[in-house]
Amino acid sequence: MRPTPRAETFPANTPAASQVFTTVLSQGPLPRLEVARRVGLSPAAVTKAVRPLIEAGYLVEGVDEEARPALGRPANLVRVDGGRALFIGVKVTGDEIIAVLTDLCCRIRVARHLPLSEREPKAVLAGITDLVQQLLGEADGSSAPVLGLGIAVSGDVDRGEGTVRYSPFLEWRDVPLAELAAMTTGLPVTVDNDVRALTVAEQWFGAGVGLSDFAVVTVGAGIGCGLVVHGRVVAGAHGVAGEIGHVTVDPAGPLCHCGNRGCVEAIAGEAAIVRQIREATGAELPDAEAALALAREGVAAARDVYARAGEAIGRGIATVANLLGPERVIISGEGLAAYDLFAEQIRDAFVAAAFGSAARCDVRTHPLPFDEWARGAAATAIQSFIGPDTSR
Amino acid sequence: MRPTPRAETFPANTPAASQVFTTVLSQGPLPRLEVARRVGLSPAAVTKAVRPLIEAGYLVEGVDEEARPALGRPANLVRVDGGRALFIGVKVTGDEIIAVLTDLCCRIRVARHLPLSEREPKAVLAGITDLVQQLLGEADGSSAPVLGLGIAVSGDVDRGEGTVRYSPFLEWRDVPLAELAAMTTGLPVTVDNDVRALTVAEQWFGAGVGLSDFAVVTVGAGIGCGLVVHGRVVAGAHGVAGEIGHVTVDPAGPLCHCGNRGCVEAIAGEAAIVRQIREATGAELPDAEAALALAREGVAAARDVYARAGEAIGRGIATVANLLGPERVIISGEGLAAYDLFAEQIRDAFVAAAFGSAARCDVRTHPLPFDEWARGAAATAIQSFIGPDTSR
Repeated sequence: MRPTPRAETFPANTPAASQVFTTVLSQGPLPRLEVARRVGLSPAAVTKAVRPLIEAGYLVEGVDEEARPALGRPANLVRVDGGRALFIGVKVTGDEIIAVLTDLCCRIRVARHLPLSEREPKAVLAGITDLVQQLLGEADGSSAPVLGLGIAVSGDVDRGEGTVRYSPFLEWRDVPLAELAAMTTGLPVTVDNDVRALTVAEQWFGAGVGLSDFAVVTVGAGIGCGLVVHGRVVAGAHGVAGEIGHVTVDPAGPLCHCGNRGCVEAIAGEAAIVRQIREATGAELPDAEAALALAREGVAAARDVYARAGEAIGRGIATVANLLGPERVIISGEGLAAYDLFAEQIRDAFVAAAFGSAARCDVRTHPLPFDEWARGAAATAIQSFIGPDTSR
Repeated sequence: MRPTPRAETFPANTPAASQVFTTVLSQGPLPRLEVARRVGLSPAAVTKAVRPLIEAGYLVEGVDEEARPALGRPANLVRVDGGRALFIGVKVTGDEIIAVLTDLCCRIRVARHLPLSEREPKAVLAGITDLVQQLLGEADGSSAPVLGLGIAVSGDVDRGEGTVRYSPFLEWRDVPLAELAAMTTGLPVTVDNDVRALTVAEQWFGAGVGLSDFAVVTVGAGIGCGLVVHGRVVAGAHGVAGEIGHVTVDPAGPLCHCGNRGCVEAIAGEAAIVRQIREATGAELPDAEAALALAREGVAAARDVYARAGEAIGRGIATVANLLGPERVIISGEGLAAYDLFAEQIRDAFVAAAFGSAARCDVRTHPLPFDEWARGAAATAIQSFIGPDTSR
């Protein structure tokens, strides 16, 4: 049997040190003075904060050879040594498990997929353990230790407790996944909602870097939303937040699995689109790809369904903008494959329903391959490792 | 002419000191150790932070005589000396100006009302200046200086710039109210949206004390919402946030002044209720009071309008809960006068539309007299005085 992976504690034990590290991680390399400016600390406080991090090898400081000026003193930049530590991120979908091995900068080194035939917690846990062991094997060749495992699952997840409270796709209730996976892998485990995990990755390493207020809207099997407000991901006092999929668009609309009518997800979720196109055209449609193909062929009834889906998504985004006024909304998810069929409707519905200057919100798309969901899980593991005060 | 009020700077010049003061202000009197625990600082750091505040007279420390135990050492408590400084808060509505003189703990000492016959910025400014001069006269008898003026206006207000960008009720666009009022009163001026100002008051001195995530929903002429997320009031990147009044309840519903159909405000705002009852009953209704009287008499068509209004408000609150998962939603505003006519519908619609554990949010009412809106404005002035890092 493989030895238990070695435990290591992050040497930033003050909020200031965590903040300095997170800033360099997401925005570096940076000169110390610029780090001080961005975190609002004195240069002396930054120097004090970086010392133990440099000693432990998490930060390195040196001249940026590529940016060396022709004349004058070259800038001394602080950056994270990505190779100092490795992390594993796992995303569980209804039909497969995706696992990635990343470095400390959340760059993917290896990705592995495993089809999922059964959805019971026991089978899923076995699959996760198998993939993690494979990736630990890959990591063995590196000098860097694997310091954490993040697992992302759709649904109501209590990150603090490490519990999947309810996952409709997996049909799970109250599964203590963090505890179970920690036992089978020997790693410290973070379990989070998949959209929130993706939002952490966007905040630290993606289209949300440097923004204190933004939203990630994911379009696909479900319609999800991760929110960053005042620099931190919104978790909800009772574990529910970002449920843009259950914003009501039309109280007389189709029935949603949540029991209400006309939710965004009941109109624009993948299953809803397939069902509506099937009803409108009478065509036998095995899946979303077939539905998309029909619309691409120009079948008007199919195109109308996508147009209405876009309108519902645009209204949902406007609701987020009217309530929170984010700087940016990033639309992503596998549903972007059909983006050409509803981009205009999203935009038009958003502009029509946005109140006043909320319409100035920067709505953009950021296509993310499925591995990115697993990378989001790795980002939560990195976040947990760095410490509880670094969600900013 | 009255001499320019004297300027004074708050002696808490670090985020830690501001945080300590704000905690004692909203949650005190507290023993130092308890302050340290609540703000997450060391007792030594708290001692360092409170020293200049005690020296300047903003904080006092002493035995709580009322809570002196029969045996053992009495607790030494830190509290704010409310009488150390005074503030003025002004709320401008469509037909009157309300001004209050408060102490540093936001306790109202005097309230004055002035009917507003004209709504042009010049006339409103003259009214504000008049009331402020009256209250400065009242304050003259006190040894405490008046250190700030807060003005609350409904609509799109840029607090940072001190500008009312758009106020539908006043029909104002881009009025630099803070600059103008500073010139006529000589006081440092904070201008904020009225619902956000009320939310600051609830956060520091009301039903939101100690909560990091809550919402204030105001029901009346407009339907507004102030949001506190991660301990800070949400302002919106472009000045718009909390627009629960423009959450769509029914896309086929009545036209709203924002240009969309079926917004919460177009169904549950005061003018909408009066209009709908007029249409349904054919009765001549001069105002909301007459509409309310009709419903109270038991006229079914009038009661139905209130019931639908409650349903719209409940759906709006559920949307807030589904997106943000607040711990508590506080319903307030002059519309609460009709609360018995729609309380049940608010509750039922909220529970039906809340997703999963979002339904566990504590939805409660907190009736606030109109003076409280002006008190909210005073709270923003206190907040500005204490410093920019104290919004938590």
